[in-house]
Amino acid sequence: MTQASRTSLDLDHVRTVVRAALDEDGAFRDVTTDALVPPDQRGRGIFIAKADGVIAGLPVAEAAFVCIDPEVEFAASIDDGAWVENGRIFAEVNGSLASILSAERVALNFLQRLSGVATSTRALTDAVAGKGVRVIDTRKTTPGLRALERYAVRLGGGGNHRFNLSDGILIKDNHIAAGRARGLSIADVVRAARDGSPHTLRIEIEVETYDEAVEALEGGADVILLDNMTPDEMARVVRLTKGRALTEASGGVTIDNIRAIADAGVDLISSGSITHSAKALDISLEIENL
Amino acid sequence: MTQASRTSLDLDHVRTVVRAALDEDGAFRDVTTDALVPPDQRGRGIFIAKADGVIAGLPVAEAAFVCIDPEVEFAASIDDGAWVENGRIFAEVNGSLASILSAERVALNFLQRLSGVATSTRALTDAVAGKGVRVIDTRKTTPGLRALERYAVRLGGGGNHRFNLSDGILIKDNHIAAGRARGLSIADVVRAARDGSPHTLRIEIEVETYDEAVEALEGGADVILLDNMTPDEMARVVRLTKGRALTEASGGVTIDNIRAIADAGVDLISSGSITHSAKALDISLEIENL
Amino acid sequence: MTQASRTSLDLDHVRTVVRAALDEDGAFRDVTTDALVPPDQRGRGIFIAKADGVIAGLPVAEAAFVCIDPEVEFAASIDDGAWVENGRIFAEVNGSLASILSAERVALNFLQRLSGVATSTRALTDAVAGKGVRVIDTRKTTPGLRALERYAVRLGGGGNHRFNLSDGILIKDNHIAAGRARGLSIADVVRAARDGSPHTLRIEIEVETYDEAVEALEGGADVILLDNMTPDEMARVVRLTKGRALTEASGGVTIDNIRAIADAGVDLISSGSITHSAKALDISLEIENL
Amino acid sequence: MTQASRTSLDLDHVRTVVRAALDEDGAFRDVTTDALVPPDQRGRGIFIAKADGVIAGLPVAEAAFVCIDPEVEFAASIDDGAWVENGRIFAEVNGSLASILSAERVALNFLQRLSGVATSTRALTDAVAGKGVRVIDTRKTTPGLRALERYAVRLGGGGNHRFNLSDGILIKDNHIAAGRARGLSIADVVRAARDGSPHTLRIEIEVETYDEAVEALEGGADVILLDNMTPDEMARVVRLTKGRALTEASGGVTIDNIRAIADAGVDLISSGSITHSAKALDISLEIENL
Amino acid sequence: MTQASRTSLDLDHVRTVVRAALDEDGAFRDVTTDALVPPDQRGRGIFIAKADGVIAGLPVAEAAFVCIDPEVEFAASIDDGAWVENGRIFAEVNGSLASILSAERVALNFLQRLSGVATSTRALTDAVAGKGVRVIDTRKTTPGLRALERYAVRLGGGGNHRFNLSDGILIKDNHIAAGRARGLSIADVVRAARDGSPHTLRIEIEVETYDEAVEALEGGADVILLDNMTPDEMARVVRLTKGRALTEASGGVTIDNIRAIADAGVDLISSGSITHSAKALDISLEIENL
Amino acid sequence: MTQASRTSLDLDHVRTVVRAALDEDGAFRDVTTDALVPPDQRGRGIFIAKADGVIAGLPVAEAAFVCIDPEVEFAASIDDGAWVENGRIFAEVNGSLASILSAERVALNFLQRLSGVATSTRALTDAVAGKGVRVIDTRKTTPGLRALERYAVRLGGGGNHRFNLSDGILIKDNHIAAGRARGLSIADVVRAARDGSPHTLRIEIEVETYDEAVEALEGGADVILLDNMTPDEMARVVRLTKGRALTEASGGVTIDNIRAIADAGVDLISSGSITHSAKALDISLEIENL
Repeated sequence: MTQASRTSLDLDHVRTVVRAALDEDGAFRDVTTDALVPPDQRGRGIFIAKADGVIAGLPVAEAAFVCIDPEVEFAASIDDGAWVENGRIFAEVNGSLASILSAERVALNFLQRLSGVATSTRALTDAVAGKGVRVIDTRKTTPGLRALERYAVRLGGGGNHRFNLSDGILIKDNHIAAGRARGLSIADVVRAARDGSPHTLRIEIEVETYDEAVEALEGGADVILLDNMTPDEMARVVRLTKGRALTEASGGVTIDNIRAIADAGVDLISSGSITHSAKALDISLEIENL
Repeated sequence: MTQASRTSLDLDHVRTVVRAALDEDGAFRDVTTDALVPPDQRGRGIFIAKADGVIAGLPVAEAAFVCIDPEVEFAASIDDGAWVENGRIFAEVNGSLASILSAERVALNFLQRLSGVATSTRALTDAVAGKGVRVIDTRKTTPGLRALERYAVRLGGGGNHRFNLSDGILIKDNHIAAGRARGLSIADVVRAARDGSPHTLRIEIEVETYDEAVEALEGGADVILLDNMTPDEMARVVRLTKGRALTEASGGVTIDNIRAIADAGVDLISSGSITHSAKALDISLEIENL
Repeated sequence: MTQASRTSLDLDHVRTVVRAALDEDGAFRDVTTDALVPPDQRGRGIFIAKADGVIAGLPVAEAAFVCIDPEVEFAASIDDGAWVENGRIFAEVNGSLASILSAERVALNFLQRLSGVATSTRALTDAVAGKGVRVIDTRKTTPGLRALERYAVRLGGGGNHRFNLSDGILIKDNHIAAGRARGLSIADVVRAARDGSPHTLRIEIEVETYDEAVEALEGGADVILLDNMTPDEMARVVRLTKGRALTEASGGVTIDNIRAIADAGVDLISSGSITHSAKALDISLEIENL
Repeated sequence: MTQASRTSLDLDHVRTVVRAALDEDGAFRDVTTDALVPPDQRGRGIFIAKADGVIAGLPVAEAAFVCIDPEVEFAASIDDGAWVENGRIFAEVNGSLASILSAERVALNFLQRLSGVATSTRALTDAVAGKGVRVIDTRKTTPGLRALERYAVRLGGGGNHRFNLSDGILIKDNHIAAGRARGLSIADVVRAARDGSPHTLRIEIEVETYDEAVEALEGGADVILLDNMTPDEMARVVRLTKGRALTEASGGVTIDNIRAIADAGVDLISSGSITHSAKALDISLEIENL
Repeated sequence: MTQASRTSLDLDHVRTVVRAALDEDGAFRDVTTDALVPPDQRGRGIFIAKADGVIAGLPVAEAAFVCIDPEVEFAASIDDGAWVENGRIFAEVNGSLASILSAERVALNFLQRLSGVATSTRALTDAVAGKGVRVIDTRKTTPGLRALERYAVRLGGGGNHRFNLSDGILIKDNHIAAGRARGLSIADVVRAARDGSPHTLRIEIEVETYDEAVEALEGGADVILLDNMTPDEMARVVRLTKGRALTEASGGVTIDNIRAIADAGVDLISSGSITHSAKALDISLEIENL
Repeated sequence: MTQASRTSLDLDHVRTVVRAALDEDGAFRDVTTDALVPPDQRGRGIFIAKADGVIAGLPVAEAAFVCIDPEVEFAASIDDGAWVENGRIFAEVNGSLASILSAERVALNFLQRLSGVATSTRALTDAVAGKGVRVIDTRKTTPGLRALERYAVRLGGGGNHRFNLSDGILIKDNHIAAGRARGLSIADVVRAARDGSPHTLRIEIEVETYDEAVEALEGGADVILLDNMTPDEMARVVRLTKGRALTEASGGVTIDNIRAIADAGVDLISSGSITHSAKALDISLEIENL
């Protein structure tokens, strides 16, 4: 199962998010730069990777400079999503030095964070290369930045889980408990979800044991999420479901255990840490006066 | 130098940020919960700390539930900013179970992140307790969440640096270089900043050597930021400036070296890591049907 | 297959849409009413059905009055979604007469339109009662009013198709043609959709012939939309797919032919006309001075 | 009385409405197209009229494509407002096939609806051609689309009534009743409206009988709306008012009775049905891969 | 001709304008007050008129305090629009002292400006009391504050001209010149305006000479604006038009010449100075700690 | 102390404010111009100063025309901030006559107001030329227009005080009183402000007597605002503070007394009247048809 290259970004959304970040940072009234750098002094900035990783977010960084000053020019020598090595110069920005300085941090904040997400995703996808499993994200993203972080996951070779509560069914333990309080079995709950939702959505359900997986399958679940199971338990469920439902491993996935999880035969491995715990990629912007 | 308790939050701002996060998460059209949980089934959720730390963001979590459903009731047994130990139940939420489930993740996302920021701040402030130094934040905050993260820093016992580019002067290396390109010395640049900015702002300047600090003082700088200096170098600058300018240490501050930095006698220690690298505090919401 | 009662409305969304409609209608500066009706003159308005049908949109109508004047009181004697007969008084509004007059048309516009959608849906669902088929809507809704119109469809006993392009896969003729231009068969296209989309979504594909349905099934389609087929052709596809994929009939569905379509054994029947061509339900608001 | 060609559209408003419709339709995250159509595959779409009628809304359709992708090119071979016959190709769109597919329905939704309004207006204006009467719209427009629908009415040869409650006086039965409750005659109410409103507005009043028209004239009404009168009654009022006030016929206007109404000599005929009940004009977009 | 008491304010609009002003003033992050005044210290503020005049804007002032802190209580001892004498205490505010201090200036800014507009209007309306002329405003209002300033004009006893370019016809010299360039006489222009605009609007035209007024009347103008004429010239036009059109005097109206203008017999006198040059009414807010 | 040329404007902000003003004025639905001026009739407008003064706001005026119609061309023959004499033609606008007429008043309203602010500022700065004092503005600006009015002050040769409550400390009499109620001396209050605020802000405090100034200095105030003191009293405080704190004169500053105040030796003189009482500069726009 491979992931098609769906890397398109809604650029209007990018501009809106970037404009809000620049407003938050007071970048349109940068009192230091206003006092010290005449608008017609020109400068150039060089983006340099200070570590190996995947660069993600070039259009976002560009938007930060252009939003401050449409005459600033941003040019990258790589595609967004490319792997770079420490020391590689991968983009530059030219124009009014004052404009470059006022937008610098917002541009870097986005670029470092998104490159970090892409890089941490790449680490996991590389670890299971050739295994036929898809590494996917979760809803544990930064408030306000979900679309951008999912884009970074795709650049890192991962896939996306449902975007949010509106476009996917995932029956979690509390939903099961809510049903149980009303006398419903797990299979009943799966059937209720089927009957009460658009037919375009698959029914995914989270289970913690083999027996729950059996019940879920009986109810007709399309996808079974195996929560915090051992690889052996997972393999047992995979044998049960193969051809009847997809299986997704979730909980405590790390670079160390992901191969073992993949070997259990699951179709999908979801990881919250690729978004909520990604280490920012170290990138510097060196500026020269012209 | 102590930090007054300025912990007030702009609740309109909180509601706006929370509403946007709920919209992003599709929480107003939660297809799973809509299909499985009748609106009149009631539930209770119990917030439990799964680690020791500072709880921060109770009004934000409350806003998430109330925004989904004004009849949900949220009650905390501690003040925002209180220290809790692993296992402590510190808040509960009561109302429509469907509403609680739809808002759960957004509430937890904010609460865990802000509590993480407050806890990491507390670690640094505790490490220098009694030293008379103030630990402060930087502009390295999450886009869109700066006001909330600074609030968390205050709850952790820290202080705030300038909010953004509009409300504080900080002359950085690139500003100095821009001046140098126009024939200005460091002292000239400090004077230009003084002349070109509102008189209500102090002039802070980043220096990398003792000699630059001398020049900055000569120009009349009010605050000198010591970038990546050793404690010994810092101490030398502190002896120079004492009584004539404040000193701020910045760059590579960790729990391991912060006491040594404080011992150098600086007035302020700023840390980007308390916001950009704070580990989320582990908090769970256990839900029961009523 | 029955539709669970997911009739909850996002009331914040309702208020936003209603406020925009009142602004568009200049209702906050109603020059006629301002000139003629003193703010303290009180009135009562009685809502009367002028035809048989399903009443839908009571909370929307209420929002119109309350948005103009929070002290206006709106009370309904029926539940939203109830069937009423011609002449039935089903709600009343009390308060400042000027406020009632300024909000009147916007309230009625929404109520009549949504009741019309619910009523036209009910006509179709009644026609196939007991057949085990679900009548669903399409994306042919009024720009800006999709969430409200889908709510009305649910009140009329119907179900909802995907909300929009983001939360459901529907491969249409142009997507198939785009694939063919790149050398892909229908089965290839289905597989590409599977690989390139979140695993939480089913793959639905539109076909026009039995042979295309065979290809779609071979590719692993979850749902097959039968576009403008005769009931006999549909029945043939249903026999093919039963148990392997859902079938959805679409195109030219009317009150006259829907039973024949249902008899063909399809799982779903989608109708654009229940939203884009619903006749407004005639409702009057009779106002008395108090 | 002829209608000057005031067909200008506020293009910023168009872009705002179109953007909202695209957002509502999830067009910036079209999961099907993202999975199946590479961004660089090019396509062309041909707009074909499937019925005779007035085409209205070409700039709105163009905005939908350009909002998704500024590089899509839209070109029409007719002016907005032109009459076309069934089968006529009147516009085409070229560019990224994926962009064309994602914007297609929103573009068609607007174009079909607005062309329907223009066509239904044209039917009425043609029916009374040469009679010296102006056919005008009402406030019974789709919430959110009033400016666009009024534009379509103008393209169909009609005129516009007041835009909303803020820019025209229309004393309706409930306003008269409100006055009566305070002891005011119809003539008193007309005078009160005159005294209580900007002098730039005419005073229009709705009457149901000849005697009410007499009273309204006595009060100095500028325009008398004849609500649901027979042509003979209208003619009697027209003889009374000619030269002293304009007359507007309203209520139950159809293509069958509009000539008789015009023959009664009224100056204006208003019709809610040209907006609230206009049948969408059938238009198809045929797409080819390039 | 008297002005009915249309003093209602759109309170949602008030809250929006006030919130924007508080945001602009940084009132939700008042660093001085945050540092010095604990949230639970209570205070009371007393509003005192420091000059004779009309108080206007009490709900606006109240909104400023309540927007900062819903628990602040504002109480006025007079109605909005009342005349007060120097030294009169007319309102008070109670609650958190910090909240009162943060909202103080925005509240005063609005109150002083609007009271100034009402007072300057009252001066003119008093000067022509009993003359049967209506004093009205113009479009020369402060950007963003038109609705509030027109409200203040009404409280001062004045009337309102058209709200804006959309809700009234006023043919000015440049419109006449534009017509002349296309071969149209003044009477032609008036007729073109009549034909090209909604029938609910009167046609007003600005003239500079008696002869132009003759032409305007011939074209059927409803209102004739006499631009910068002497009272004698005005009186001559008034004799011409009486009973056939209204007359409005405009240009250079002052407290010294307004009686002479009124004596010329015009129906309306418009003044830009009551909004664009109104002197702020001196009002102080004296604050006590509780 | 001279003011660097920080005249940059946030053009996105300008466009937002101008668009809102045009909306408020109904300029996108100008019924008079729509009826009388065909879109293709061309015109030229010439801006002429009708008094001596500083022209300020050329980019704002341009934005008004371009917002209505991107094809209108605006060209100025002077720089923004230039001094012009009565009769000077300083800019022109070319394009669709209808567009020019619809945007005219909004453009003039901003240009006259901002030029008035710049001119009144220039009067004060000229009066103290060579004295080494900086004339600055206050927070007494028009709600919604603060950024623009501060820009005009800079063009008039003045400087800016803090932008708002968030970016500067100014301890006023009520803050002192609030402290006194809690047992704090003036010096205590200054120290509390220091401890409770970001270190990047100076501490400014308002005093009314020499003795209060002594206390403020003792607490470590950076700036002392002398409220309504006589020049002699000011001079006495200046002698006290020289070298230890800046002094700012405030209250009742006029063109007549400003030299005497400057002679007292203060560093800054703030004036509310340059913004809240600036007389609009008389500017006319003469329009010709082409």
